[in-house]
Amino acid sequence: MKLYDCTSAPNTRRVRMFMAEKGIVIPRVEIDIAQGENLQSNFLSKNPRGVLPLLELDDGSYLDESVAICRYFEEIQPEPALMGHDAKSKAKIESCQRHIEFDALLPLADVLRNSVPHFKERALAGTSGVIAIDALVERGITSYHRFLERLNKNLEDQPYVAGKTFSIADITALCALDFAKWAKLKTPEHHTHTLRWYAHVSARSSASA
Amino acid sequence: MKLYDCTSAPNTRRVRMFMAEKGIVIPRVEIDIAQGENLQSNFLSKNPRGVLPLLELDDGSYLDESVAICRYFEEIQPEPALMGHDAKSKAKIESCQRHIEFDALLPLADVLRNSVPHFKERALAGTSGVIAIDALVERGITSYHRFLERLNKNLEDQPYVAGKTFSIADITALCALDFAKWAKLKTPEHHTHTLRWYAHVSARSSASA
Repeated sequence: MKLYDCTSAPNTRRVRMFMAEKGIVIPRVEIDIAQGENLQSNFLSKNPRGVLPLLELDDGSYLDESVAICRYFEEIQPEPALMGHDAKSKAKIESCQRHIEFDALLPLADVLRNSVPHFKERALAGTSGVIAIDALVERGITSYHRFLERLNKNLEDQPYVAGKTFSIADITALCALDFAKWAKLKTPEHHTHTLRWYAHVSARSSASA
Repeated sequence: MKLYDCTSAPNTRRVRMFMAEKGIVIPRVEIDIAQGENLQSNFLSKNPRGVLPLLELDDGSYLDESVAICRYFEEIQPEPALMGHDAKSKAKIESCQRHIEFDALLPLADVLRNSVPHFKERALAGTSGVIAIDALVERGITSYHRFLERLNKNLEDQPYVAGKTFSIADITALCALDFAKWAKLKTPEHHTHTLRWYAHVSARSSASA
């Protein structure tokens, strides 16, 4: 297997951290999204959608989408389980993770893609010719703040995002909070539950993967 | 169990169709999104994110997010398998489904939410006070057309969206194409592979669930 990766992107970090938790090590190829390397024919021939991460399987086929790649690793190496161990925990973790994607990662991507000059004609991941929309920056920031309020409340009475156990939902949330830093969107100091969780999860060795 | 549902919404239909394929029948409570019933305190006390579908489990807890709800049903009643049967098929189906969500359902939601008058201050699902952004309508339509091109190519050499077997990815794609009708976004007549697939999948009894 081989992972097409981009060190600076949140979705690629999600996969790297997931693999580190499971101790999976495979060759890695760096693709520079900021410079548009993901939209060049060499990469598009592997993934026509132009997005990262991308996993090349041993049979030569390709698999994209961060969570789908994580699912593959969870299936071929179930322990430690990061996507749940029974019907309810699997569904709960998937639900939590999707909240973070819709309520934090997508709004943060909107903030980045519609404000940073070198994305001004690439305002959607994997696509050229999509013009930035200024109003999405403010909408994205507001959505992200709404997410932070819910996250803090969610962590009030449980140690991890989806309950008692560390899971892929914690990985996704950590990557979202760190991704928000480039836009100087900080977790408020009175969000003590989130800050406690953040310090704890950031200290895992996988967080630097 | 009990399903909080909205007959006219695409994400609720995904769950209804998934359940119909498995022959699962449970009580259903209709919540009117167009009239904002999902943003009233009675529903928000069950799901603070204000979105549908929502599944009430027998232990009184709630589970939201369409795919997480489907995951729960897949786990408690594995046959017929709609989310894959081995590592590669599970990952491939999840990848395909996420493509449809990001490339079709989200853009179509943008078209609806930013153009229809009664959503003009509810431009994001589950939230009040988010003002519509006109430019998202054109962006959404363009994204959806890009998705349609890829879908037709994808169906050129396989009967179903994720390969040889009917799966949740077909359910999601069908719900997207039917959701597009309200905006008069039709599949072009020269997309013969998509039209063949559409006729075939629409004929399943679950399609009317």
